[in-house]
Amino acid sequence: MPSTLTVGIDLGGTNIKGAVCDADHRPLAQRSVPTDATGDAEQVLGRMADLARDVIARAGATPRDILGVGVGAPGPISHARGVILDAPNVPGFRNVAVRDRMQALTGIQTTLENDANAAAYGEFVAGAGRAAGDMVMFTLGTGVGGGIVIGGRLLRGEFDNAGELGHTIIVPDGRECPCGQRGCLERYASAAAVAIRLAEAVRTGEPCVLEDRVLAGDELDARDVLKAIDAGDALAARIWDETCFYLAVAIVNVQHTLNPRRVVLAGGLVNAKERLLSPVRAHFERLSWRIAPDRPEIALAALGADAGVIGAAALAVAEFGPRP
Amino acid sequence: MPSTLTVGIDLGGTNIKGAVCDADHRPLAQRSVPTDATGDAEQVLGRMADLARDVIARAGATPRDILGVGVGAPGPISHARGVILDAPNVPGFRNVAVRDRMQALTGIQTTLENDANAAAYGEFVAGAGRAAGDMVMFTLGTGVGGGIVIGGRLLRGEFDNAGELGHTIIVPDGRECPCGQRGCLERYASAAAVAIRLAEAVRTGEPCVLEDRVLAGDELDARDVLKAIDAGDALAARIWDETCFYLAVAIVNVQHTLNPRRVVLAGGLVNAKERLLSPVRAHFERLSWRIAPDRPEIALAALGADAGVIGAAALAVAEFGPRP
Repeated sequence: MPSTLTVGIDLGGTNIKGAVCDADHRPLAQRSVPTDATGDAEQVLGRMADLARDVIARAGATPRDILGVGVGAPGPISHARGVILDAPNVPGFRNVAVRDRMQALTGIQTTLENDANAAAYGEFVAGAGRAAGDMVMFTLGTGVGGGIVIGGRLLRGEFDNAGELGHTIIVPDGRECPCGQRGCLERYASAAAVAIRLAEAVRTGEPCVLEDRVLAGDELDARDVLKAIDAGDALAARIWDETCFYLAVAIVNVQHTLNPRRVVLAGGLVNAKERLLSPVRAHFERLSWRIAPDRPEIALAALGADAGVIGAAALAVAEFGPRP
Repeated sequence: MPSTLTVGIDLGGTNIKGAVCDADHRPLAQRSVPTDATGDAEQVLGRMADLARDVIARAGATPRDILGVGVGAPGPISHARGVILDAPNVPGFRNVAVRDRMQALTGIQTTLENDANAAAYGEFVAGAGRAAGDMVMFTLGTGVGGGIVIGGRLLRGEFDNAGELGHTIIVPDGRECPCGQRGCLERYASAAAVAIRLAEAVRTGEPCVLEDRVLAGDELDARDVLKAIDAGDALAARIWDETCFYLAVAIVNVQHTLNPRRVVLAGGLVNAKERLLSPVRAHFERLSWRIAPDRPEIALAALGADAGVIGAAALAVAEFGPRP
């Protein structure tokens, strides 16, 4: 009987997470170690391989019991070649053949995917996207990532960059984005953008309970904005509502492009729970067309920070498991 | 040896087109008859079946030689149920079981697809999308339609409404659309929208060589706008350039969502050829991000008005032919 255990590795700028998952996508053993990237990719790859061996042992298994390793990593990456092309948050990872190096270091066949796709796949197999068939996920963190599952399979596109939903243009000629475009969703609906837009409005003289902190140069985050709303602050409420509006526009665009059954919201902003979900749903209901009853369900992610590692492990099943 | 001949039927508000195509998607016989829809769907279905029999005979074949019939029709439709849900331009076609009626009338297995998808599939198998693998088509006519091919297969989505690219929101809180939304691409980049936006600008007092015709209530079209540009009209040039800009924004969004190899422009507006393609490409180059070399090729459709009927015939192969 072929093995149904796989290893997921989630490479981040701060930590590397590892897990062994069973055929039902349950983590049997899980651990996190510091990435500690100093510019030498080979050192980080060594830690990733050690982590894989460690979680395999903790799960009471051996490398021979493992069907494959899935690695989720910041990108852009090439899935076909198994290479991280560039990972600005992980020094040393430019044109690094992660797949082949991990295979060599662990002796286990490996697949590489970008981290937003891996997290979306995790939510699809074991979280908020379960049984949806078609699912689109927005990851609302420092940036805005995305992942698209169609007919149960991850959509990668011709250049492995499908699902970069944070860089769809939501405001033509809008705010400048470091990617080189203007008006990207990421500039309006990331956790960072919420705080930045609030601070900008304060600096133009709009009254706000956070005024002193903004002018003192404190770095705010989305939680501060929510607390300001609790304190009755009108500016914070407006900025938050605009964020939900822009997200709803992006969901309308996903509805008419991909027509999925479910849209999942993930990432730091989702800590706001109903305070995010309710206004996003309300804006979506108001914005979306009236001529067909084809609205996706909008849901919050269910796996939190584990989505990436569970998804990476599941992608090893998709890559190396028996074809359905 | 199984048959490789299929019939394509393209149901439109004015004409019904029919063709028999061979395995290479070449039309062996082709004919068009008036739709003449007066509200009785059964009469139109009768004409569609007669047309199918007629082109089969003209191709020197019999119904037994035909693998299947593909029907492209205005929608929304349900592909799974083979039903036209509503076709405002073809009176009588609301909740009509086109697939089952055509099967009964012709004795040949039939599949139903919406017309924009059928045309996109036609360009994919035999026109500007050939050998692309992934392709997205914008049809710029009275409205803006769309069709998406991923991995060689038409994307339908959970509710059969994928690829409704004309109703992605390109300007939040923008122009009102009959669909109930605001700021739809269709309000900025359809052939009709070009003339409407020009007429609106003239009525607000902007100088234009078409002023007399606009104020006389003449119905303008995109050709008039192009002629005005030839006459050195600045307003017409600005409206045309804005149209190309909004289309380029929509192509950026398709790039980051689906990451296709090729984007094809089709429909009436494409008669402008290089005068459309060049500025759309230039705006796209300027608008799209700088951080990955994943730009799709942008091309004009190659099959003209035959794309729908060729695509419908090809969809019968996809539906009823041997699995690859």
